[in-house]
Amino acid sequence: MEFYCSQENLLSAITITQRGISNKTTIPVLSGILFSLKDNKLTIKATDLEIAIEYNLTVKGIMDGEIIIQAKIFSDIIRKLPKEEIHFFVTEDKIVYIKSKTISIQITGQNSSEFPEFPKLPDTKVFSISEYIFKSILKQTTISIATEEIRPVLTGVLFQIKNNTFNVVATDGHRLSYRIGIIEEEVVDEIKTIVPGKAVNELQRILVEDEDKNIDIYINKNIIFFVFDQIIFSTRIIEGKYPPYEQIIPKENKTLIKVNTKDFLSAIERAELLSREGTKSLVKLSIKDNKLNITSHNPNLGSSEESLEINKSGDDLIISFNAKLITDCLKVIDSNEIIMEFNGAFNPCVIKPSTEDNFLYLVLPLRTT
Amino acid sequence: MEFYCSQENLLSAITITQRGISNKTTIPVLSGILFSLKDNKLTIKATDLEIAIEYNLTVKGIMDGEIIIQAKIFSDIIRKLPKEEIHFFVTEDKIVYIKSKTISIQITGQNSSEFPEFPKLPDTKVFSISEYIFKSILKQTTISIATEEIRPVLTGVLFQIKNNTFNVVATDGHRLSYRIGIIEEEVVDEIKTIVPGKAVNELQRILVEDEDKNIDIYINKNIIFFVFDQIIFSTRIIEGKYPPYEQIIPKENKTLIKVNTKDFLSAIERAELLSREGTKSLVKLSIKDNKLNITSHNPNLGSSEESLEINKSGDDLIISFNAKLITDCLKVIDSNEIIMEFNGAFNPCVIKPSTEDNFLYLVLPLRTT
Repeated sequence: MEFYCSQENLLSAITITQRGISNKTTIPVLSGILFSLKDNKLTIKATDLEIAIEYNLTVKGIMDGEIIIQAKIFSDIIRKLPKEEIHFFVTEDKIVYIKSKTISIQITGQNSSEFPEFPKLPDTKVFSISEYIFKSILKQTTISIATEEIRPVLTGVLFQIKNNTFNVVATDGHRLSYRIGIIEEEVVDEIKTIVPGKAVNELQRILVEDEDKNIDIYINKNIIFFVFDQIIFSTRIIEGKYPPYEQIIPKENKTLIKVNTKDFLSAIERAELLSREGTKSLVKLSIKDNKLNITSHNPNLGSSEESLEINKSGDDLIISFNAKLITDCLKVIDSNEIIMEFNGAFNPCVIKPSTEDNFLYLVLPLRTT
Repeated sequence: MEFYCSQENLLSAITITQRGISNKTTIPVLSGILFSLKDNKLTIKATDLEIAIEYNLTVKGIMDGEIIIQAKIFSDIIRKLPKEEIHFFVTEDKIVYIKSKTISIQITGQNSSEFPEFPKLPDTKVFSISEYIFKSILKQTTISIATEEIRPVLTGVLFQIKNNTFNVVATDGHRLSYRIGIIEEEVVDEIKTIVPGKAVNELQRILVEDEDKNIDIYINKNIIFFVFDQIIFSTRIIEGKYPPYEQIIPKENKTLIKVNTKDFLSAIERAELLSREGTKSLVKLSIKDNKLNITSHNPNLGSSEESLEINKSGDDLIISFNAKLITDCLKVIDSNEIIMEFNGAFNPCVIKPSTEDNFLYLVLPLRTT
């Protein structure tokens, strides 16, 4: 096996592929990356047996072949090489030579036959969506994924595809993210698929915010594939039935306010500093006329109080929240202003951008004692 | 106590002063900052009983007074406030109010009488030096401070002042940094003072690289004071006798090379990746004619080899080093080219910038087996 390629291209490819490797793996071959060269196409693969990442790179191929190389040392080496052409070749006894200018590095490779089989991409994609929009969908929904494994389906995000809508939902039981996407394809039979949180988080890191590029999504039984740029990213789907979220989204409200997103975020972050300690940082919102009063109190530290101008319709209200559940949401809303809809102090509150109708965040209040 | 001041000025002052606080303190009053207002002068003080930092800020004073406030919560609050004027006042029962626009935060202060006494600045300074030069002196010497406490004097840097020279030395037994500074003052009686590593590291973080500003240095028995900007930074001196370093600096050499600093640094960093594992990363330098060959070998990973063009005079040589001791030095030399002077494979090597004659780094080779 032998090829030439640029340091920068190889480094980008490895940095992305490496995200498929688990740091905790105890199976030696899974801490390696598989390199396969056929003509001028270098395929780089890594997997933790749940996520599988394949990266295709055009190189100047000299001799076809396959080799597994330990990911960490290989990426450390490529990162430290000058931005020049790299000459890569493997001897018959699996010694990998990496050469650049007057530099010659040799490391030991492993036989490629031990590398796990990758899932096969189906022939027909389900739908396409712009990378830019898909990244924004993931940003707004991944915040609500459950981190505790008590109900496995909640550790993933629900992809619900029907007709030309693509709904993405995540909830941890305390809050729920619901994001609507429009796709060009007409999907007649409804698809409901739960994608693991770990996979969507990795995917979010790899995706670029490019409005001109599309990501193609394929589903094959229990595997979902994301194909974009030079990458095929696949993951196992979570088996199980996602809870019926539609029925908990309130249709009406007794109080509706509009408030500036950034000002509200800053105010909650300040109040959080003086909120009750422990797992839940309680902050209290008092809505009266056109004022939103935000207060917090920590018996060991002190207290804070501030007020924001708001637009209000409906009843006055006093309601308390875990500050983090509010700030998480405000950080992923781009709109200058948000709408909050309430149904009393004990029912979930809805937060959404004031300018767009494609995102909704539901959050349970805290009961104050 | 009551004053008005800008959020930005107060935040800078606290961020710097807070560096005087130890995270590990078990004495409650030492996790606090003392605020003292007299007319329009706000003095902010923090100490871990070894280092003491005093910051003087001009504010719009309303009523004089003193209060201790817990540093962490106070700096978190000020950091989150808008860039507006802050109204600060303390009630008779030690409640601290921090107000900004429609924000009102209250936290509990502590009686100032418990705060430790600060050392008194002597009347006469010993000498002045530019902040820019002083920062560069610290950068080049702090790398060689011993981190192990076996010989307490080596956990500090030696300040040696005589006539109009200011020499700074640090060594951990494996390498030695020696930097010469020129001062305007004539200091007749030689001063030898060992400043704790922790203090010089903090000082380095606080100093700005400003060629137009001076730092004034005062010494009073066992305390050294650094006065710059609005800051008085003082620290206890380490008692003891610094080892006689002059005699280990070789006067002659059998081999001298000149090599590009950046190329050599990159080469050593690459070689380090494939050097022997464990505490010492052994890299081997082979000097022959006008080539410097850098090799490393790790039986579990592989090996590396590369060569650099050099200017050489004297004997050919093969010598090994702990890679980190070389890279630490190369990172703090600004000159494009360095000079290395050797006296065989078993004696210390000298590294210095090729363009300046004010810095010298001595490093012991490793004996290869």
